[in-house]
Amino acid sequence: MKKRIAILGSTGSIGNQTLQIAREHPDKIDVIALAAGKNVELFERQVEEFSPVLRTVAGNGPSLEEISSHPEVDIVLVATSGAAGLAPTLEAIRSSKTVALANKEVLVMAGEIVMSEARKHGVDIKPVDSEHSAIWQCLQGEPSGAIQQIILTASGGAFRDRAVQELASVTAEEALRHPTWTMGKKVTIDSANLMNKGFEVIEAHWLFNVSFDRIKVMIHPGSFIHSMIEFGDGSVKAQLGVPDMRLPIQYAISHPDRWASQDLPKLDFDQTGTFDLYPIDLERYPCLRLAFEAGRAGGTLPAVLSVADEIAVDRFLRGNIGFLDVPQLLEDMLNKHDRIENPSIDDIWAVDNWTREMAQRWEAS
Amino acid sequence: MKKRIAILGSTGSIGNQTLQIAREHPDKIDVIALAAGKNVELFERQVEEFSPVLRTVAGNGPSLEEISSHPEVDIVLVATSGAAGLAPTLEAIRSSKTVALANKEVLVMAGEIVMSEARKHGVDIKPVDSEHSAIWQCLQGEPSGAIQQIILTASGGAFRDRAVQELASVTAEEALRHPTWTMGKKVTIDSANLMNKGFEVIEAHWLFNVSFDRIKVMIHPGSFIHSMIEFGDGSVKAQLGVPDMRLPIQYAISHPDRWASQDLPKLDFDQTGTFDLYPIDLERYPCLRLAFEAGRAGGTLPAVLSVADEIAVDRFLRGNIGFLDVPQLLEDMLNKHDRIENPSIDDIWAVDNWTREMAQRWEAS
Repeated sequence: MKKRIAILGSTGSIGNQTLQIAREHPDKIDVIALAAGKNVELFERQVEEFSPVLRTVAGNGPSLEEISSHPEVDIVLVATSGAAGLAPTLEAIRSSKTVALANKEVLVMAGEIVMSEARKHGVDIKPVDSEHSAIWQCLQGEPSGAIQQIILTASGGAFRDRAVQELASVTAEEALRHPTWTMGKKVTIDSANLMNKGFEVIEAHWLFNVSFDRIKVMIHPGSFIHSMIEFGDGSVKAQLGVPDMRLPIQYAISHPDRWASQDLPKLDFDQTGTFDLYPIDLERYPCLRLAFEAGRAGGTLPAVLSVADEIAVDRFLRGNIGFLDVPQLLEDMLNKHDRIENPSIDDIWAVDNWTREMAQRWEAS
Repeated sequence: MKKRIAILGSTGSIGNQTLQIAREHPDKIDVIALAAGKNVELFERQVEEFSPVLRTVAGNGPSLEEISSHPEVDIVLVATSGAAGLAPTLEAIRSSKTVALANKEVLVMAGEIVMSEARKHGVDIKPVDSEHSAIWQCLQGEPSGAIQQIILTASGGAFRDRAVQELASVTAEEALRHPTWTMGKKVTIDSANLMNKGFEVIEAHWLFNVSFDRIKVMIHPGSFIHSMIEFGDGSVKAQLGVPDMRLPIQYAISHPDRWASQDLPKLDFDQTGTFDLYPIDLERYPCLRLAFEAGRAGGTLPAVLSVADEIAVDRFLRGNIGFLDVPQLLEDMLNKHDRIENPSIDDIWAVDNWTREMAQRWEAS
């Protein structure tokens, strides 16, 4: 039986790559719904090729929540960016759909709410991020509670080899040159200062029910080891592969099966391979430190971090603040915020508004 | 409920380490039977500490087959060396016991017979070798038939960095200095010339039902990556750990669970780690090449290789033949042997006798 998929955010990088997988496996995937934001031209081409039953672009068509709960949909791939993914994710969960989650903000902003709904409805949240997919792959067949430690790998970002004092003057253009992955602008900046890794730490906490003390970040320049788990008996499992988002996307869809693929790139075992792993210096990466702090404190703090970072990166990309102002802005927002312990979704939206406004007004001291 | 274990070969290296695990987990392991060869003194101390119901040393006590089929035994750990493990392994399988297999010769000599009996009786053969345990751990939760390729890692042996022409003159003493593992003499020599890895290739073929074309050996000097699997979608899983046989032994017993351990060593993720993997040059390691050839040809050839190697290593250790004579002897035995396609156990014993005699008489040309 084909897997019937709704792709929220079909014209973005993840959406596009999901359609490449659907193109290679027409016998296994049925694209039931496509939803996109502004790129109407690309959307029209996608609609022509995949003939989805449901289609929404630029606000025309069924809402994302209608798509998420549609009876013909088995899997909702949430690849929208930002807070827009939250409501359709919750709707998919409440409709007992499988959720393939590529959107970071959903769990960072509302991890407690999303995971408790998922437990309530017996819904699997299948990670699409390469790091979380790696952990999830390594967890297959393991007893629950077996995780001693998660080791999230990080490329180290564009400025891995630069002195910290040089970073104050780096430009948006320099920060956009990521050493391994080709991604959108926001996530590339988030990778340069490891804010992205910080969000992944918070996501890993929610997805795998592991305390922050048991999540470790290590620099792995090659980006071949996508992440690792240490178990209580000292055994460590790692998942490796060529850095290519199509693998975690496909696995989120094929799971628990694996689909042989001609398109997906393979590691070359006929060549010498060297895998380096370095411990991380949190002082060098204040954004990562802030993520651990906000994650441990919990409540609305991770939502503040997420929204403040959205504004901060936008201001950096516009040349409005410097590279090292980003963590300063984030830290100031976290300090100013009155934390709510067990926020409702409405609380989250209020915090979103408050943070957005405060972060826009923030000035470097 | 405790796991009731019979340890065949309790005074050897694997047997001893199994008892260390039993000592750490008295709530989980009940040592029901101990059997050993000649080391009566150590055996008596083991009996005093663990009070096994069944005990056999130096031929006194129930036979290994009686122990393997005893109703109070759940798991038979086969850690005898050489062909002596074969009959009790088959008896354990026919009595529907779980078999934890540390003995290499059993599958190399009679893989087809052992695996077909195991399938017939629905018995799990749980590998105790670190490489096969790694592959087995990575296979947990994966669909059957998902293996694209197995990558067996090899330390490269004591002479990894020596020129081939120097090897003719190496002494037994030099060959016994293994860079990573401390093991018995036979297996240390087998590691120096990668004969051991060759036997592991044949075992992997039988344990995981993978053709020889899909088994690749790579040199990994650090011995931290114990082995890897590549799946059809390009995803690769690796199992890592400190080189210590207690981990695979414990996992073979605890599986599918994992037992937290204070005793088992852990990788240190606070330090920089470098993992190197090199493609292998089969011309440098003729014993490995012969294992692939004998494995592919099948029938009685792997048994010839196994027995001939036993004699060849013994002769090398006694200074009777040179280091490079070992593969020459093996190749000559394989060439002289009249291969039997589907051998019975009696055929295997006849081949054992023939090979033993011929290999003793062999002279370097």
